[in-house]
Amino acid sequence: MKPHFSLRLRVFNLNCWAWEEPAAPRLTAGPSSSDVRRVKNPSSHLLVPSVPRGIPYLSKHRADRMKRLGDFLNVESFDLALLEEVWSEQDFQYLRQKLLPTYPAAHYFRSGIIGSGLCVFSKHPIQEFTQHVYTLNGYPYMLHAEYNRQKDIYLAHRVAQAWELAHFIHHTSKKADMVLLCGDLNLHPKDLGFRLLKEWTGLHDAYLETQDFKGSEEGCTMVPENCYVNQQELEPFPCGIRIDYVLYKAVSGFCISCKTLKTTTGHDPHSGTPLSDHEALMATLCVRHSPPQHNPSPTHGPVERSPLISVLREACTELDLGVAQARWWATFASYVIGLGLLFLAVLSALVAEGGIREIAILLWTLSVGLVLGVGAVYLFHLQEAKGLCRARAELQHVLGRAREAQNLGPEFKPALFLEHQEGYRTEDQ
Amino acid sequence: MKPHFSLRLRVFNLNCWAWEEPAAPRLTAGPSSSDVRRVKNPSSHLLVPSVPRGIPYLSKHRADRMKRLGDFLNVESFDLALLEEVWSEQDFQYLRQKLLPTYPAAHYFRSGIIGSGLCVFSKHPIQEFTQHVYTLNGYPYMLHAEYNRQKDIYLAHRVAQAWELAHFIHHTSKKADMVLLCGDLNLHPKDLGFRLLKEWTGLHDAYLETQDFKGSEEGCTMVPENCYVNQQELEPFPCGIRIDYVLYKAVSGFCISCKTLKTTTGHDPHSGTPLSDHEALMATLCVRHSPPQHNPSPTHGPVERSPLISVLREACTELDLGVAQARWWATFASYVIGLGLLFLAVLSALVAEGGIREIAILLWTLSVGLVLGVGAVYLFHLQEAKGLCRARAELQHVLGRAREAQNLGPEFKPALFLEHQEGYRTEDQ
Repeated sequence: MKPHFSLRLRVFNLNCWAWEEPAAPRLTAGPSSSDVRRVKNPSSHLLVPSVPRGIPYLSKHRADRMKRLGDFLNVESFDLALLEEVWSEQDFQYLRQKLLPTYPAAHYFRSGIIGSGLCVFSKHPIQEFTQHVYTLNGYPYMLHAEYNRQKDIYLAHRVAQAWELAHFIHHTSKKADMVLLCGDLNLHPKDLGFRLLKEWTGLHDAYLETQDFKGSEEGCTMVPENCYVNQQELEPFPCGIRIDYVLYKAVSGFCISCKTLKTTTGHDPHSGTPLSDHEALMATLCVRHSPPQHNPSPTHGPVERSPLISVLREACTELDLGVAQARWWATFASYVIGLGLLFLAVLSALVAEGGIREIAILLWTLSVGLVLGVGAVYLFHLQEAKGLCRARAELQHVLGRAREAQNLGPEFKPALFLEHQEGYRTEDQ
Repeated sequence: MKPHFSLRLRVFNLNCWAWEEPAAPRLTAGPSSSDVRRVKNPSSHLLVPSVPRGIPYLSKHRADRMKRLGDFLNVESFDLALLEEVWSEQDFQYLRQKLLPTYPAAHYFRSGIIGSGLCVFSKHPIQEFTQHVYTLNGYPYMLHAEYNRQKDIYLAHRVAQAWELAHFIHHTSKKADMVLLCGDLNLHPKDLGFRLLKEWTGLHDAYLETQDFKGSEEGCTMVPENCYVNQQELEPFPCGIRIDYVLYKAVSGFCISCKTLKTTTGHDPHSGTPLSDHEALMATLCVRHSPPQHNPSPTHGPVERSPLISVLREACTELDLGVAQARWWATFASYVIGLGLLFLAVLSALVAEGGIREIAILLWTLSVGLVLGVGAVYLFHLQEAKGLCRARAELQHVLGRAREAQNLGPEFKPALFLEHQEGYRTEDQ
């Protein structure tokens, strides 16, 4: 980029809640395809994650909502439109055709069995894209997303995902001009996962940073006014919940600010039926050239600050609990498998002796099913424990380094630490 | 790093072939845990992938080999020792204790159900590590690695993996000083996957670059002289195969050369029983400061060169074939499921009518098993098709950009392309 320039970037984000109606895919509501998208646009890195929520009913008026969304995006002509939960590739193709004149670049992110549901439309050419699938994605036998914060059974998974996302941003954005992270994170602003993400990456929350906010109370992105929202789920949150975000940071030689942020308020932007059960976010960002020394958010994460250490410690504790729980379930499942196999052996003996054959065969069938089913549960929790251990090992490593940096005083930046180590085997010529 | 300096880096790599003996894990031989490791050391990025091969027999004399490996690494005192197929965490812990005085930093990479088998020992502190698990990992029902190049059933998966690895390096090494990629890639030097990896990343092959090579004929890393090698598998390759590599590149402001490369030759370094069925690689690399304009390997990949376009095109064709095949299998499986369900309905009717109950129940059991099994096959190939489509979409995007760059002439570097686009919404202040 040229010095002394300013770039205005208008971004749209929406969790579209677009399930295909005829297929009634109850089974596909599992959160197994959560992804992180990364798109490198003219002079920016865009990072767009989404953790699809499980929705046990069909999305309503899908075709009509898609049409109105397309019309709205064409009229507004954003720089970027980032959509989540577009589960049908046909919907993406429909939008692609409709938006082609205004947004010539587009990409649909495929992954897993049901896809990622993520797509991006851009007014500017997309230079590169890449995709990262989370290691842990909740429990396949619990299809419903959890909004209860008191007893969040997904807590360890959320923390591991937030860490993975932060790590992905950290490793892929080192030479970027800016990072933009938009999407439905399924995390409330005070959640451990969200704090971990913000502390480790140094991302800024558009809602907190902007001086010109228009939209729903407290910036909520699921509000009781929206007729598609399950009112019972939102009962503990009278004005709604904020789980969709526009987060950003400038990386080097730039500064970035959020001029305006708007959300829809339970209706479509022209006060009709809502576009989704989530509210749309519309941000205007301003990117400016700035001397590197005034860089407000260091690339390597603010290692020397103690809030980081405290949130890392908290995350480690949660992962410890998660690992213990996963191992408990794996052990429990292995006992059930043992019992099932014993029962099978007894039944086989009964059949061989010529006992009540019919019932024996039926029971045999049932217990084979049980052993196989519990075997799958066992393997799942074994893999869950390994995934959580992996996140914990990475976290502990960072925590160790953060503590070292803190002990060496606030002037001791990670970059210096690096240079210090480089002296090791250096031989001056 | 300081200007005018030179750094000597001694690297050791070995596929350890260390399966735990008492557990006899025939089932664990599947290639489902192939990983990419990334370790950032004093002034380098290390990228270490491995595609574990399926070994249908137990690894022999494991404890003794681990002991001798530890002794050798301690005596040689490399900067980095990179090991693959260390499947038991106990083996890693044993080595860790043994190597602690010489290699104070170490990491074991956990993933999936059986782990990744990867670990790293370093003389210098490890600043960061991250891990990437391949999307596609071969067919779970075919446990044996394929050395036959004429009819390689894994070809599409190998190409997709090579692409994913190249993409990972591309996105994570932009601010690195150097990239080092070591490991058992399960790719021969002329394989499409290997050519794709080299062309897109600009990595250099230590075996081809060094002027001081000592070791097995043609640099082979699985040789018939090794008593652990399955001689039948190697029959088509009289002097062995080369599938383990040390690859490197300098990224910016540095140049790197391979001073020496050694391999073992079917025995351990002191001419005893081999350390593994693979040969070890020992490289001495020399990293020097160099003015940025003499950078031999651009970070963004040599987009303007036509060998890249040709290899990208070839890879696209292979992925097309892979996608078609995966879809064919998914369709075939769905027909079998349909037939199985029909058969079940007929059997249920027979039982209800009071026919030969015993046999009916037995058949019912068998067909439920069949439907469930084929259901799993169906889901697997559906997910395989999506994974291959994803790699193809990324490849096609890069191919498109490479063609554009070529049409615009050889002076048209990707960096200029980027700056060109940045002009778009730029408003000079």
